[in-house]
Amino acid sequence: MDRREFLKTGTLAAAAGAAATTLATPALAQGAKDLTIVSTWPRDFPGLGISAQRLAARIGELTEGRLNVQYFAAGERVGAFDSFDEVASGNAQAYIAADYYWKGKHPAWAYFTSVPFGLTYTEMDAWIKYAGGQALWDEVAGGFGLKNFACGNTGVQMGGWFNKEIETADDLKGLKMRIPGLGGDVMAKLGASPVSLPGGQIYENLVAGAIDATEWVGPYNDYFMKFYEAAKYYYYPGMHEPGSQLAFGLNLDFWSGLSGTDKAIIEAACNEENARQTAETNANNGSYLSRLITEHGVELREFNDDVYDSFGDAAAQVFAETRAHSPLAAKVHDAFASARDDIGRWSGFSDMAFVAQRNRVLDL
Amino acid sequence: MDRREFLKTGTLAAAAGAAATTLATPALAQGAKDLTIVSTWPRDFPGLGISAQRLAARIGELTEGRLNVQYFAAGERVGAFDSFDEVASGNAQAYIAADYYWKGKHPAWAYFTSVPFGLTYTEMDAWIKYAGGQALWDEVAGGFGLKNFACGNTGVQMGGWFNKEIETADDLKGLKMRIPGLGGDVMAKLGASPVSLPGGQIYENLVAGAIDATEWVGPYNDYFMKFYEAAKYYYYPGMHEPGSQLAFGLNLDFWSGLSGTDKAIIEAACNEENARQTAETNANNGSYLSRLITEHGVELREFNDDVYDSFGDAAAQVFAETRAHSPLAAKVHDAFASARDDIGRWSGFSDMAFVAQRNRVLDL
Repeated sequence: MDRREFLKTGTLAAAAGAAATTLATPALAQGAKDLTIVSTWPRDFPGLGISAQRLAARIGELTEGRLNVQYFAAGERVGAFDSFDEVASGNAQAYIAADYYWKGKHPAWAYFTSVPFGLTYTEMDAWIKYAGGQALWDEVAGGFGLKNFACGNTGVQMGGWFNKEIETADDLKGLKMRIPGLGGDVMAKLGASPVSLPGGQIYENLVAGAIDATEWVGPYNDYFMKFYEAAKYYYYPGMHEPGSQLAFGLNLDFWSGLSGTDKAIIEAACNEENARQTAETNANNGSYLSRLITEHGVELREFNDDVYDSFGDAAAQVFAETRAHSPLAAKVHDAFASARDDIGRWSGFSDMAFVAQRNRVLDL
Repeated sequence: MDRREFLKTGTLAAAAGAAATTLATPALAQGAKDLTIVSTWPRDFPGLGISAQRLAARIGELTEGRLNVQYFAAGERVGAFDSFDEVASGNAQAYIAADYYWKGKHPAWAYFTSVPFGLTYTEMDAWIKYAGGQALWDEVAGGFGLKNFACGNTGVQMGGWFNKEIETADDLKGLKMRIPGLGGDVMAKLGASPVSLPGGQIYENLVAGAIDATEWVGPYNDYFMKFYEAAKYYYYPGMHEPGSQLAFGLNLDFWSGLSGTDKAIIEAACNEENARQTAETNANNGSYLSRLITEHGVELREFNDDVYDSFGDAAAQVFAETRAHSPLAAKVHDAFASARDDIGRWSGFSDMAFVAQRNRVLDL
């Protein structure tokens, strides 16, 4: 998923006169502090935008107006990718974003959203909350004057839409595929040509044959994109974003000046929304996948072991380059990889093993 | 896991003079309402008890003393299994428990904790929050004057400890196994003799040969029980409790009289703790499983397909009996099974498929 298009959409929405709304319903308390939130999602954008707006409203509700929450969707106050500087500078108090947008500032940011062969939602939550992840995130964010919390997750993304079957890594060679980020870097190592395209332009490029393949998010979001008209093979599981965590990034000085209660409320609201967004996604993906198959003749395919072995070799090269950036990048990578050993192995004996047997026995 | 022993432990702790503590740290607000919480866990009990105490403290913290939160562990005010009546009657305002304890009052309660071949944590959260689960829970709880929220989850439990290998369902015949609830009913259909024993008595019975096998929770909790001294085969995945959800059950009249803000705070705190307890468990199970294997020579084994097929046949019989209880039991079962079709199938294409490939490629 590339959210660059959200920027554009958000900007257009702003030009059309969309205004920021005050979300705190209670009357403002005396001495209320402004909490201005800038988001990287367009207003009312399904899934991500709705989740961000729900979180902003919740903080206003729970603080009974002690915090005067104002929420600006992408482009309503600043462009999506200017959110970071807007908050780090103190012009606004918080952003809602995917922190891998800031990997140009430091590659370690990517680990707090999602990386190829990374962590699922439950694994990420375990690492962040109880296995050292938050402390590392604080270290990275603190270097930029920020304090960040997890506030949403897309769950495991699909591998993408292809107009031919992918039987070996050779089938990826020369393929023009719309896939951003480190996942795109992995594809490039395998001889594909990763392309970055706004969401609104993927369909036309796919139909025209300018690209051969694309990934987006998952069945619930992909259903409305109509990629199946030009690329009927829908592959799983995606290796590139196994649980993309969204972030509530606060200006550190603002955060430090809050009362203990308001700090606790912000943390609780973020923790609540982190689970809510994931639950909403998981509640819808299954039925929309069925609809894609039965209504539109989509051919569901699983990447085979050979293809995944090639993904693994390429990802190892990409990580070696990331790790070489700096001592902090190496520290975050190594801690992440160590947590993945323990927590990921446990997933294999628990959720993975149970779901495999249950679905086999019940023929799901 | 049978929490009957917690009753006993809790009662003993109370007899020894343990006192309830006021957890709300802020000065009490004028007109503060009492929120007395009775729990089914002993004080400071690892995992479950710690989680319950954390939730009680959080509600006090977030409401700034508008709610005067007092927390009583099992036996400190009433016995664990008297919690339901204490809250339904209005003597206390809320309980923290596993709602399948109340299946003697109505079998539908079991579906809101965990049932054999049921839902994992992420699936349960999707069903409860965004696929109709909460409305059904409200219907069941409302019939008893209660309003309940999810407030914790143990994750997928291990299948148990055995003193011999289980190659076919025949190996279960005549086996005396400590396994409670519907999981025990499934074992009974296969010719085993399910036994109910308090946690503190399992070890001695296993060592003496009075029982041949036992389940408990997962590696983090089981590590300290030393079952490996008498039963070295540790089986996964457990079919009986794939994601045991804990409940915060409020007296409905009390709930209805709360302000919108305090209702929202209680809901947010429960949603937060639901994810926190799961994260804490998942952060620890992997490393403790490694310690069991390397320090104590535990033999990890996976139930094979034949055994799981037998579990499936037996579970179908148990569910048919449960469903036949009443129209409400049938309604809840059917809604649960329908949600499992959509949400469970999606797990197979997402978390399960991804973890399988990642762990294979990285050799986790």
